[in-house]
Amino acid sequence: MSADTPTAGVLALLFDVFGTLVDWRASVAREAERILAPLGHRLDWAAFADAWRAEYQPGMEEVRAGRIPFSKLDVLHRRNLERFAPRFGLVGLPDTVLHELTLAWHRLDAWPEVPAALARLKRKFLIAPCSNGNISLMVDLARRNGLPWDAILGAEVAGDYKPKPRVYLAACEALDLRPEQCMMVAAHSHDLASAAQCGLRTGHIARPNEYGPGKGERAPTVPVDVIGQGLDEIAAKLQA
Amino acid sequence: MSADTPTAGVLALLFDVFGTLVDWRASVAREAERILAPLGHRLDWAAFADAWRAEYQPGMEEVRAGRIPFSKLDVLHRRNLERFAPRFGLVGLPDTVLHELTLAWHRLDAWPEVPAALARLKRKFLIAPCSNGNISLMVDLARRNGLPWDAILGAEVAGDYKPKPRVYLAACEALDLRPEQCMMVAAHSHDLASAAQCGLRTGHIARPNEYGPGKGERAPTVPVDVIGQGLDEIAAKLQA
Repeated sequence: MSADTPTAGVLALLFDVFGTLVDWRASVAREAERILAPLGHRLDWAAFADAWRAEYQPGMEEVRAGRIPFSKLDVLHRRNLERFAPRFGLVGLPDTVLHELTLAWHRLDAWPEVPAALARLKRKFLIAPCSNGNISLMVDLARRNGLPWDAILGAEVAGDYKPKPRVYLAACEALDLRPEQCMMVAAHSHDLASAAQCGLRTGHIARPNEYGPGKGERAPTVPVDVIGQGLDEIAAKLQA
Repeated sequence: MSADTPTAGVLALLFDVFGTLVDWRASVAREAERILAPLGHRLDWAAFADAWRAEYQPGMEEVRAGRIPFSKLDVLHRRNLERFAPRFGLVGLPDTVLHELTLAWHRLDAWPEVPAALARLKRKFLIAPCSNGNISLMVDLARRNGLPWDAILGAEVAGDYKPKPRVYLAACEALDLRPEQCMMVAAHSHDLASAAQCGLRTGHIARPNEYGPGKGERAPTVPVDVIGQGLDEIAAKLQA
């Protein structure tokens, strides 16, 4: 890659995971149906997944604002579940069912091109998630989908949640790299804008159906260094 | 495995790395010669490696005792190098040489049976290093030797150094496991004694030549749950 391209000098790729690499919506809907349908519940499973995800940012904001100590995402997912579940008529669910539902987030499927594209990128770059998901969740997704991470970085290692600068910077520091030697790859412009403010390079993947058909970012709304319709296109553009 | 064996219920294996999985002595000696011989230095390279390693525990003790904030092992290795190098007549080495020497610890070779045995163990257990080495060092060793870690855990994630209990417990917690669901595997009885005090299961690997011929632990000096002459024997005993 020529020295004057914006991606020259990049040695590591850091990845957002939920939505960027895995289809949380269809996977959570499937898991919820698998767990709750046998108990007699009949819901709009995709709406259930959407409602859970809608609690995601408010839940993390409690940590980011310092109102509660850092808690891993599994703990927030569980709390968020108990918050919105009554709206779906789910009351008095046993603890075991709530726990099993919370683990739905450990069983998300990757978008189809992701495992092969990550393996390809790993030949040229260090690769690590820089997700708000906790370490055990990332490990389970990696095992399920064959994601060949060099290390699991992100919120739990940093002790705070994106888009706080500490999370991006801690990932760079763990790899002994300067921010400009790292590229954050995500399907969400707000994540990339925050990474860019920390000095990282940025790559945007279009996931136009992340929140349902046509309800996802088709293109970035902020300046980025590279864009792709999928991770394979990012790999091609990075000459991996 | 029957429920009454001491290793029943173990879901994850946590590994010491220096000496247990990699031959730091021969590797550091080789790297030091590669870097320093072209500059005209003629040393006893194995003695140089031994002298560096001898500074290892005192260096970490500064952190464990709270006299200095947590610093990653690369930083301690560099400081220790500058401390003992004059004894070998190495004075006034340029910063670039000191830096390159420090990175010798990122280029250690695994004992021969380790990569295949780890791959075998990964089919049955979660596997992660629980080393005092920093994340980037562990990543480089993994890439060099093909160590298929699920995650990089240990001192840098915990923010302290073994044998402080926090390091073992942070590794278990990162995997959402109780201590008794994790086994610490090491070639050093003091490491295993500390892990056992935290409630972890323990496995000892004999590395009788770690510090030179006949200068390593041939057998544990404390009670452990499983022993092996190599990691392949541990894998066989764990029915992996």
